Amino acid sequence: MDAVPARPARIQDVAAAAGVSVSTVSNVLNRPERVNARTAERVRVAVAALDYVPHPGAAGLRTGRASAIGLVLPDVTNSFYARIARGAADAAYDHGYSLVLCHSGDAPEREQGYFSMLVEQRAVGVVVVPLSADPGRLARLRERGIPLVLADRAMPDRDGCSASVDDIAGGRIAVQHLLDSGARDILVVNGERGIRQCADRYQGARQAVRSRREARLGQVVAEEMTVAYGAEIARGLEDLPDGVFCTNDFLAAGLCRGLTERGVRIPEDVQVVGYGDLDIASFGATTLTTVRQPVEDLGRAAVEMLLDEIEARADHLHETRVFAPGLVLRDSTRTGAPASSA
Amino acid sequence: MDAVPARPARIQDVAAAAGVSVSTVSNVLNRPERVNARTAERVRVAVAALDYVPHPGAAGLRTGRASAIGLVLPDVTNSFYARIARGAADAAYDHGYSLVLCHSGDAPEREQGYFSMLVEQRAVGVVVVPLSADPGRLARLRERGIPLVLADRAMPDRDGCSASVDDIAGGRIAVQHLLDSGARDILVVNGERGIRQCADRYQGARQAVRSRREARLGQVVAEEMTVAYGAEIARGLEDLPDGVFCTNDFLAAGLCRGLTERGVRIPEDVQVVGYGDLDIASFGATTLTTVRQPVEDLGRAAVEMLLDEIEARADHLHETRVFAPGLVLRDSTRTGAPASSA
Repeated sequence: MDAVPARPARIQDVAAAAGVSVSTVSNVLNRPERVNARTAERVRVAVAALDYVPHPGAAGLRTGRASAIGLVLPDVTNSFYARIARGAADAAYDHGYSLVLCHSGDAPEREQGYFSMLVEQRAVGVVVVPLSADPGRLARLRERGIPLVLADRAMPDRDGCSASVDDIAGGRIAVQHLLDSGARDILVVNGERGIRQCADRYQGARQAVRSRREARLGQVVAEEMTVAYGAEIARGLEDLPDGVFCTNDFLAAGLCRGLTERGVRIPEDVQVVGYGDLDIASFGATTLTTVRQPVEDLGRAAVEMLLDEIEARADHLHETRVFAPGLVLRDSTRTGAPASSA
Repeated sequence: MDAVPARPARIQDVAAAAGVSVSTVSNVLNRPERVNARTAERVRVAVAALDYVPHPGAAGLRTGRASAIGLVLPDVTNSFYARIARGAADAAYDHGYSLVLCHSGDAPEREQGYFSMLVEQRAVGVVVVPLSADPGRLARLRERGIPLVLADRAMPDRDGCSASVDDIAGGRIAVQHLLDSGARDILVVNGERGIRQCADRYQGARQAVRSRREARLGQVVAEEMTVAYGAEIARGLEDLPDGVFCTNDFLAAGLCRGLTERGVRIPEDVQVVGYGDLDIASFGATTLTTVRQPVEDLGRAAVEMLLDEIEARADHLHETRVFAPGLVLRDSTRTGAPASSA
């Protein structure tokens, strides 16, 4: 028990050093209530002296828990999902858990493959960022006994915890800001209505306009939510609105470019608000006033709710946590005007 | 042994079903050479009938290997690192391994904390994307017996495998393209010389210019490699070059903006090449000709070399794999001119 051996210590080494059987060492590590205090202390001294690391899983068993959490997301190179991953990784690390990155590529069979891997490896829980994940698949994972938390998608709290951003509030503060800055003829440049976020953001826009009698609201739906489609829509506008809310920053950047090409001044003639605070919002020729979502918080909150479910067990109550977005003011709207926030 | 129990089967259930002791079941799973064939077969039938999943780690031991790989990187929200993570995650999945995302935030103590976690969890190996990782720290991880592969940083192959991009070639093809497109007075807008990538890219630029007698090369070093500094440099240039190679796309985008503000036409008056093919390269008012690195390939190759080291053991030879970058042609250089590629 003097020198640390060159090879990693085995449980047999600990047993020999402590003068007990292997199963006593195992009991001290896994079921300490079965071992008397003096023996347990002897084993712990030997574990420390030999720098003994229990086998994988055993480290978890020792403290009554395994230690891996799965994070299933569509694409880590999408900056939105990367920010979720970062928040989740930080929270997992802070609590001593490892985070297994499962890159589903939005393919159902791949997602299913990851679920099987996570079950086999006895992951203690999974955070899922669904894109088109069907509820049946998620329910089947639950049936396999693995706690599951959704990020970026609300879920009734009887089904489990979820962390999402309030997109209705996001649409509302975007258009409220346009109205506060003097715009009255508001156009929403939106994605397909089938996309839940797009529908929610539009609903928020309607709520804001409804509160202002003299304001009007129109909508154009872009085939794809890209810079190119935003620019095309700008080129095709006949009657210019005085305020435009684009439901993502790509559309907004394209719209600004298209309007500028037509000689329209932003924000003097038309004010523009984007959504997402992506890189493009600060890098374009016209920097974008936009709605910023607390995305890292989604990942962090999802992991923390999951760990509460795992560790608190009977005391745990499912939660549907909804985060409020905020407004970032830049050059595409009139500065100095009072900005509303969530 | 008829019905699968509602709770997951335990090793005790398997032992009872097979009529053997728990340690015999464990031996069949972990050390089959110690168990006679008929007993082993009885245990395997019970394992299958009860859908028994061994505890974490044991699944790996059963097949002679554990199944988690660590990926330590500075920041997953940086799109370069996210692309490495995606390549690594895809490769790990294809080979049935899980990938543990370790988000070091470039903090040495955090990186060290992750290394300890990976050792404790008996990860089979680690891919490290170093930013300021010191060789001593990496060596200590190796001493703990965990195979380690570097991504985005070359390493002498006596020390282990590495996957990186040839930045000298990248600088060379960037400037070669400017020369092929008619530029003769070349300016490199670079980051600090202490950054290895910056030094390499400049060296490549020098190689290209040296091969063309009538060409000249100058260099400006930006305090930070940002859009703002690129724009500032453009505003301060007295004698305009006819070709500029910026060693990242942020500098190039800022430079284009600053030149455009001065009334300089791109590419008619000045041609500009960036580096990295970041989002900003395709979103700015002037889209950027830039050097694209096969970043996903770095992550994929790193994982595959790691798995070869783990699985082939004695047959494994360390490799220093270096990937060639390519050129993406856009509006900031003259089209129609012959482009060189790696």
